[in-house]
Amino acid sequence: MSKKAVVLLSGGLDSATALGVARAGGYETHTLSFDYNQRHKYELSCAKTTSKIHNAVDHKVVSFTTFGGSALNDPTIEVPKGRSLDEMTDAIPVTYVPARNTIFLSFALSYAEVLGAEAIFTGVNAVDYSGYPDCRPEYIKAYQNMVNVATKRTVEGSPINVYTPLIELTKVDIIRLGTSLDVNYAFTSSCYDPDEYGRACGKCDSCLIRLAAFKESGIEDPIPYQ
Amino acid sequence: MSKKAVVLLSGGLDSATALGVARAGGYETHTLSFDYNQRHKYELSCAKTTSKIHNAVDHKVVSFTTFGGSALNDPTIEVPKGRSLDEMTDAIPVTYVPARNTIFLSFALSYAEVLGAEAIFTGVNAVDYSGYPDCRPEYIKAYQNMVNVATKRTVEGSPINVYTPLIELTKVDIIRLGTSLDVNYAFTSSCYDPDEYGRACGKCDSCLIRLAAFKESGIEDPIPYQ
Repeated sequence: MSKKAVVLLSGGLDSATALGVARAGGYETHTLSFDYNQRHKYELSCAKTTSKIHNAVDHKVVSFTTFGGSALNDPTIEVPKGRSLDEMTDAIPVTYVPARNTIFLSFALSYAEVLGAEAIFTGVNAVDYSGYPDCRPEYIKAYQNMVNVATKRTVEGSPINVYTPLIELTKVDIIRLGTSLDVNYAFTSSCYDPDEYGRACGKCDSCLIRLAAFKESGIEDPIPYQ
Repeated sequence: MSKKAVVLLSGGLDSATALGVARAGGYETHTLSFDYNQRHKYELSCAKTTSKIHNAVDHKVVSFTTFGGSALNDPTIEVPKGRSLDEMTDAIPVTYVPARNTIFLSFALSYAEVLGAEAIFTGVNAVDYSGYPDCRPEYIKAYQNMVNVATKRTVEGSPINVYTPLIELTKVDIIRLGTSLDVNYAFTSSCYDPDEYGRACGKCDSCLIRLAAFKESGIEDPIPYQ
């Protein structure tokens, strides 16, 4: 029987790359996305297409409501635009969604146990955008320690390992890695505030980081901008 | 400003008691329940009423879909009935929902951060029904260690503490504690398989534990049975 992995897939380029890494590692991949009333819901159609073109076995979307508290799920908080890369790295940004990765990983954990999957892949990254506490190696390590005592599968001796292959990579390295693994970025979306056609704004922190990284990598960004 | 707590409220007697403990501790209480397509959805109306009569500031219900894998959320798996208390304690039962408490606590964590709450109360209990891995002190400790590095609030130095006041108590002790704190158990539901009027079956593991504990405590169980 082939080994299985749950891959958290946001629709962005990091998680598409994590999917590429899981495939390259020989896993049967089951992708998992979330509809949490995010401003950038266009990413869900990207996740669906990205799953399909990379031969994921299936793609599930879990829907839930969040409690606000972020520019990404509260329409009264504005997405910052036009900041320099230096300005972004200082503090936890308003696009931080309280405990988002903890919620995402917890659903992945449940799904992994139901599937009998031994791995969870997430594209979290601590380098280019270090403001999110739940993207740091220290957090992932603590999460793994919790997993090891949390489920029937893990307490009975079968592992569920949380893999973060991109956590120490720069965005440029991520794009190069994905390209080397034939990851197709044409159906990824990084923008926090896309228009009604899904076209990226090119001005939010996430777009600016993506644009700068593609430019530096010498690889063409295949997505349309407004 | 008063100190705030998120209280996980299932509608059962343990979480109602945890709500009583949080109130007795001087917390402004915000109760949180989940609609995850559980077989025993009647517990949600119990949670609503229990919140109201114990003066919770508000009661939120987060809805999400689960992945099956348990008698509680998969109608093809039968709820065991008529087992002795001895039979229940040996293995992880089919009513175990994969990673359920991890998901519940993760939503509570998100909510606590949005509210500025310093505490999460959960009625998990490791004594009478030790088969659930995510009800053990070892698990809660690992979860707390993860929380401490997971959120903006916690990494910036303000705590979010996960309190499990019932974790080492027997069901009899829980009923006595709640009664001493004026917890009203009339609108609690413990049954895994209630009828369409919400009346408890009296035969599933959860009912049998409840009935035995009320009997031993000498306190009358105020809920109706089929």
